[in-house]
Amino acid sequence: MIYFNNDYSEGCHEKVLARLIETNMEQSFGYGEDAHCRSAADKIRKLCGREDLAVHFLVGGTQTNLTVICSALRPHQGVLGASSAHIQVHETGSIEATGHKVMWLPSDDGKITAEQVRMAVIQHRNDGAFEHMTQPKMVYISNPTELGTLYSLEELDALSTACRELGLYLFLDGARLGYGLVAKGNDVTLADLARLCDVFYIGGTKVGALFGEAVVFSNPALAEDFRYIMKQRGGLLAKGRLLGVQFDALFTDNLYFTIAAHAVMLADRIRETLDELGWTYLVPGVTNQIFPILPDRLLEKLSKNFTFSEQERVDENHRAVRFCTSWATKEENVLALCESLTTLTRELRNVENREGCE
Amino acid sequence: MIYFNNDYSEGCHEKVLARLIETNMEQSFGYGEDAHCRSAADKIRKLCGREDLAVHFLVGGTQTNLTVICSALRPHQGVLGASSAHIQVHETGSIEATGHKVMWLPSDDGKITAEQVRMAVIQHRNDGAFEHMTQPKMVYISNPTELGTLYSLEELDALSTACRELGLYLFLDGARLGYGLVAKGNDVTLADLARLCDVFYIGGTKVGALFGEAVVFSNPALAEDFRYIMKQRGGLLAKGRLLGVQFDALFTDNLYFTIAAHAVMLADRIRETLDELGWTYLVPGVTNQIFPILPDRLLEKLSKNFTFSEQERVDENHRAVRFCTSWATKEENVLALCESLTTLTRELRNVENREGCE
Amino acid sequence: MIYFNNDYSEGCHEKVLARLIETNMEQSFGYGEDAHCRSAADKIRKLCGREDLAVHFLVGGTQTNLTVICSALRPHQGVLGASSAHIQVHETGSIEATGHKVMWLPSDDGKITAEQVRMAVIQHRNDGAFEHMTQPKMVYISNPTELGTLYSLEELDALSTACRELGLYLFLDGARLGYGLVAKGNDVTLADLARLCDVFYIGGTKVGALFGEAVVFSNPALAEDFRYIMKQRGGLLAKGRLLGVQFDALFTDNLYFTIAAHAVMLADRIRETLDELGWTYLVPGVTNQIFPILPDRLLEKLSKNFTFSEQERVDENHRAVRFCTSWATKEENVLALCESLTTLTRELRNVENREGCE
Amino acid sequence: MIYFNNDYSEGCHEKVLARLIETNMEQSFGYGEDAHCRSAADKIRKLCGREDLAVHFLVGGTQTNLTVICSALRPHQGVLGASSAHIQVHETGSIEATGHKVMWLPSDDGKITAEQVRMAVIQHRNDGAFEHMTQPKMVYISNPTELGTLYSLEELDALSTACRELGLYLFLDGARLGYGLVAKGNDVTLADLARLCDVFYIGGTKVGALFGEAVVFSNPALAEDFRYIMKQRGGLLAKGRLLGVQFDALFTDNLYFTIAAHAVMLADRIRETLDELGWTYLVPGVTNQIFPILPDRLLEKLSKNFTFSEQERVDENHRAVRFCTSWATKEENVLALCESLTTLTRELRNVENREGCE
Repeated sequence: MIYFNNDYSEGCHEKVLARLIETNMEQSFGYGEDAHCRSAADKIRKLCGREDLAVHFLVGGTQTNLTVICSALRPHQGVLGASSAHIQVHETGSIEATGHKVMWLPSDDGKITAEQVRMAVIQHRNDGAFEHMTQPKMVYISNPTELGTLYSLEELDALSTACRELGLYLFLDGARLGYGLVAKGNDVTLADLARLCDVFYIGGTKVGALFGEAVVFSNPALAEDFRYIMKQRGGLLAKGRLLGVQFDALFTDNLYFTIAAHAVMLADRIRETLDELGWTYLVPGVTNQIFPILPDRLLEKLSKNFTFSEQERVDENHRAVRFCTSWATKEENVLALCESLTTLTRELRNVENREGCE
Repeated sequence: MIYFNNDYSEGCHEKVLARLIETNMEQSFGYGEDAHCRSAADKIRKLCGREDLAVHFLVGGTQTNLTVICSALRPHQGVLGASSAHIQVHETGSIEATGHKVMWLPSDDGKITAEQVRMAVIQHRNDGAFEHMTQPKMVYISNPTELGTLYSLEELDALSTACRELGLYLFLDGARLGYGLVAKGNDVTLADLARLCDVFYIGGTKVGALFGEAVVFSNPALAEDFRYIMKQRGGLLAKGRLLGVQFDALFTDNLYFTIAAHAVMLADRIRETLDELGWTYLVPGVTNQIFPILPDRLLEKLSKNFTFSEQERVDENHRAVRFCTSWATKEENVLALCESLTTLTRELRNVENREGCE
Repeated sequence: MIYFNNDYSEGCHEKVLARLIETNMEQSFGYGEDAHCRSAADKIRKLCGREDLAVHFLVGGTQTNLTVICSALRPHQGVLGASSAHIQVHETGSIEATGHKVMWLPSDDGKITAEQVRMAVIQHRNDGAFEHMTQPKMVYISNPTELGTLYSLEELDALSTACRELGLYLFLDGARLGYGLVAKGNDVTLADLARLCDVFYIGGTKVGALFGEAVVFSNPALAEDFRYIMKQRGGLLAKGRLLGVQFDALFTDNLYFTIAAHAVMLADRIRETLDELGWTYLVPGVTNQIFPILPDRLLEKLSKNFTFSEQERVDENHRAVRFCTSWATKEENVLALCESLTTLTRELRNVENREGCE
Repeated sequence: MIYFNNDYSEGCHEKVLARLIETNMEQSFGYGEDAHCRSAADKIRKLCGREDLAVHFLVGGTQTNLTVICSALRPHQGVLGASSAHIQVHETGSIEATGHKVMWLPSDDGKITAEQVRMAVIQHRNDGAFEHMTQPKMVYISNPTELGTLYSLEELDALSTACRELGLYLFLDGARLGYGLVAKGNDVTLADLARLCDVFYIGGTKVGALFGEAVVFSNPALAEDFRYIMKQRGGLLAKGRLLGVQFDALFTDNLYFTIAAHAVMLADRIRETLDELGWTYLVPGVTNQIFPILPDRLLEKLSKNFTFSEQERVDENHRAVRFCTSWATKEENVLALCESLTTLTRELRNVENREGCE
């Protein structure tokens, strides 16, 4: 069985593992106050082109989302996000459990626009009974989104401008950030994110680390006392240096970008095959996630050798599924998938032709 | 200025006030453990036709909603409601502040259906990643709804059946319950509510009391330790007998129903006028709330003598507004409103005719 | 049965009731945005000698405590208070339910000192693992305290100075404030409170109103968006003018102070009797609460005609109880209590003498 | 610099690391639904002698404590623990952040007794105003405690009996459990814990793993839907198999117990030296933590080569500190510490003798 169901099936990249092995018996201070964390933070600041960023390391994405959001908001404030936002759909109400409403905006492609944000704020501030309404105070976006789409620099810039005008914080979930930064057509850099967002994070769990998300605060007000809230929410890892060691390795010799590019290149290969076969997508994409719409009959056969994840039913006979590549995906497995897709498609079309003739 | 903007502009009905005055210098135990509260609860149990109901009195609707909901749910559970549900739109995130997600379902008329509930539960239980999704555990409905519509007995029965099959609690917000129970065409009784809901409340604030909501639990599991949580959320009134005295008066000699019928009769009068004038409604109604769609030009003039509340813009020149009658509405004020509506409509149509001719 | 068990057994003062009756059928805007609330707030600002105070009205004490505290603190911050603080002991964890720790300091008399506050802050800021400790950010005191004691101006001044130096907010719970302001030896005024506290409240529930607490913010940062959080926590009363009407009446012609003085004068009468009879107190007092230590045998007989509340067991045969007077206490009832205390004491001593002789 | 300041300075035991390396490129399902987690859980069930235990793996102790506690309690319920309990002192209010009060009981040695629990429950249930008080529903203990002491089987049995009689849950924090189970004089087994507790956990972070705590539920009611709440609180690790792999390695060939015994043997060595030198302890101990009371002058010199953690000041010239050994502690470092302690003690006594003579 070959796994394309997600980008966290394996452990970590061999270079990351090597550093974990090398440093295993070192003695260091706990809770992220060690030299490895400092070094990793320095490298991130350098990549972002700013000395004044606060960088903190957490273990996972849900933990990061809830800690950042509950740290930033007062009780009556909520967070705006897309209808498909991870915090809205797939975190078991983690944000509400900290006391805050997720205020979602309709979205077909996983993205929201500056205009949607402006309208939502107007609606919640100008209603006759506005003290009776949750006040939006933060915008949460993912890049790449949960649907594998990317914000352009222009779109991000517009969102950032809207947030600043309206007094909102802009928070970018970068659980798969690496795969976005190296994708074809991407025009956003880490420096742009540091400039346009109040806080964002660089995902490690899905891009070469065993686990870990690096949170970057460019708004110093949001960074204040953040470590207290990390501790309170169970997010201050005792052996914090494990996070520092991994991010330090990932940001040595461009490893993070190199391995992300490997995943995207293999995803492009799968897209080419799907394109050639004439299949369409739930949403077009350029990163490591692919959402083709395929016939149930084909998927049933494909699932004998490959795992993939279910996205949604499209019609009686078709559904959208997700194939993920990752830093760990082997080229031979991608070739096997492409071959199977080709073979099964041809078989199916033959059968359909015959059925059509009868 | 005559107020039609809501149903809580005045104090309380004179018979309620009389009882408050009579009992003012009585000494009684605090926190609702007095004879007035016992008497009121007994009357409510009798009206519902069941001896085994637990009855508690709270001060206001938001307080009641948040206390009932947070008392019933475990951390990962959420509450389903209409897109226009009071807890979703107009309580400043009160439910989320207790840690729970409001999971809203689209609704044009303020109601949700058993089918919507079934679909939502299936979607959240059967998703491949279901442990990553908030679990619906309660259905919140209002009757009358925020848009003045009513559930039929058949609809309520279907909702109740769905909830029991799916293991959900059914909670009915009856902030305006009186106005629904006496409306034309209503076929639901208090006994039905006690039979079909796990918990519901009978609104006093909007139906003759200074303040107060009577919560009725027919599911004993939900009633367990409820007073502790009332206290914790600031809802255990020190002079609790004020609530008992008021509800006891409201349920003496059918007062609650008589005064609700007064309001609905006057609302019917307004509806007749609007019908005669050919105006339409955002949503048709039979209770004390009326949501006509009227031209801005007419509303501007009307607002010189009458207050009403804004509902939503319908098109460039029209918006839906809300007129509320209540137990306290004077017939003469309704006649004045009807007269103004008639006069202003005619004037406007004359102007429009002239404008049309030019 | 005559009630001395608390100061909220009756309804409201006749002058307050008169105003509620007079205004009952007035139409006014909801949620405290009416002329009565404005007038009451103006009178309170005048009494405090400052135009810049924000004044808000809530229904009860627990509601006020939890709303003020959760509005002011970030997630990792806690509130310091006495071991006997109402928020620590008698609010069913209302503060913790908003996410914040109550950090209590030992106290025999219901008060805490500036020195205790300084030590607690040092301990929580200077601990080697300080990010692992809740950070004190607010000091909660009651005046009078739960044990009926009073802060002197000097003590309050020292607390205020300590709070400002340490960056803490000072919050004073004045549920029984009236009874403190008029007590013998009190040297604190409303103007002092406005100057020394960041926020405090003037209790109505126990001093002449049906219900109601007037919150006064002198620190504008704490007042920001407070109404949103009132709404969220179920504390924004629909017919908010009920609170305005009552406080307006209480602050007309010094009513609040006059009726508080009545209660304290009667409490002094009881204290004189107890003193003459040679009984001692759990803690000495000057306000409307009295905590004598009395023999079980006497209390058993006294309880046939009088209610009082239990405070704590002192030894095998004695316990401390609480007698409360209030604005509503009748002189004749106090005389009856004093007489019973005298008679029962003499009887008991006669019995004891006889028992001693045997 | 040699670290004795805690038991989480290094990475993981070489055998654990070896398994992580071997399995690194395996593909497995996420979120703990993999074969390694199943195997580790089976081994734990076997050690506990029961097939019916639910076993879940979390990353760290604070995360585990808050997830277990918030999953078990209703809003008005609190958790009893020692004054030195980790959840009370060193988790930045993590439990309160989930809405629940930590109700601490005085303790000099880190332990609480069945009698203390009984008294606390009586006090909170029988108070005249009991609905105004948080209701204790869970007892939290640590074994070994934060002060390195151990519960005897008799003490645990008495606590368990009290909890069952009173309807409380017993929850044991075993962050350092291994070091307790192998200590001299310990008479408690894993099977005892499974029998006496409703839920407990076996610490990995401090006993040979990179990170990880294995939660064992013997009360099935507490285990219901626990994974949802793990997810909600950010505790469901994407690559959950990392936890399974580590615990599987730790419970292969008795590794967990062997490496814990190594740490305790070395701690015994340090205790012998301290005993010989005549130093006393804040609290006597038998596990891997040692809390000697030493002169500031000695500690100042010792700190040039060794790190240790500060516990508390004992008098003007002495303070209690903590030395920790662990599975990773090297014998040579212990010998160096013992030698330094001996040398510095002698030097100090010589100086004192001389000072005494002057």
